[in-house]
Amino acid sequence: MTKEEENILQANENFYRALQELSLEAMEAVWLPENWVRCIHPGWEVLEGWQAVRESWQRIFANTQFIRVAVGVQLVHVEHSMAWVCCTEKISSAAEGRFDSAHIQATNVFHRRNGSWYLVLHHASPRPEPWPEQSAEEVVQ
Amino acid sequence: MTKEEENILQANENFYRALQELSLEAMEAVWLPENWVRCIHPGWEVLEGWQAVRESWQRIFANTQFIRVAVGVQLVHVEHSMAWVCCTEKISSAAEGRFDSAHIQATNVFHRRNGSWYLVLHHASPRPEPWPEQSAEEVVQ
Repeated sequence: MTKEEENILQANENFYRALQELSLEAMEAVWLPENWVRCIHPGWEVLEGWQAVRESWQRIFANTQFIRVAVGVQLVHVEHSMAWVCCTEKISSAAEGRFDSAHIQATNVFHRRNGSWYLVLHHASPRPEPWPEQSAEEVVQ
Repeated sequence: MTKEEENILQANENFYRALQELSLEAMEAVWLPENWVRCIHPGWEVLEGWQAVRESWQRIFANTQFIRVAVGVQLVHVEHSMAWVCCTEKISSAAEGRFDSAHIQATNVFHRRNGSWYLVLHHASPRPEPWPEQSAEEVVQ
């Protein structure tokens, strides 16, 4: 793994840490505040521009008691000043007094500016629930 | 719109034309045949590498009588040799004697090689069905 790929995976990790911490401030540090960024939460319409994306996180954080995310990285690929990560998310959360868990497939696109990588697209959607045997294997590995 | 953005949208259109024509040959011309390409069909596990992606289209085409896709482009953004398109797909299809329609949100990532743009990531997932008023507006426009 190259140094650049490590930096991208660090940016990816920072995104999920901001999510787990329910921290709007940390989320602001992760995203590029441009009108061309896009965010697709599972089953939502696409959100266009940083203002709409920021408001969505604000709303999600206000209605959530906790989130834990287990991330499985499937790919990091970099081309010049853009990169993307494909990963799985296993999300456990409590919102409005209700516990929930979800298996998510995510595509995260990053852009490098002034030497740092920023999130510019997050596309998350439901994925099939892994077979119990697969989960067991993952625990063993 | 720049000339480069027009080229990317043309590549995006070629992808949907290949899908409508159920043409594996046309699909082969659209994708970059690399092991780092990825494809996420709605609700499927991620497919890794051109071989797996190609086989999925082969399987889909073999089991489908027809597909019609109405595409609504929401964004095209280019950075150096990478670009991505966010778009909606309204898909009408007939497979195994059954008619179906689906509203899809897609992220398509393209890579430029030797002056041409190739698809390297297709992430498609269900989106909320538009309100009837919205559909009516779209018809009028």
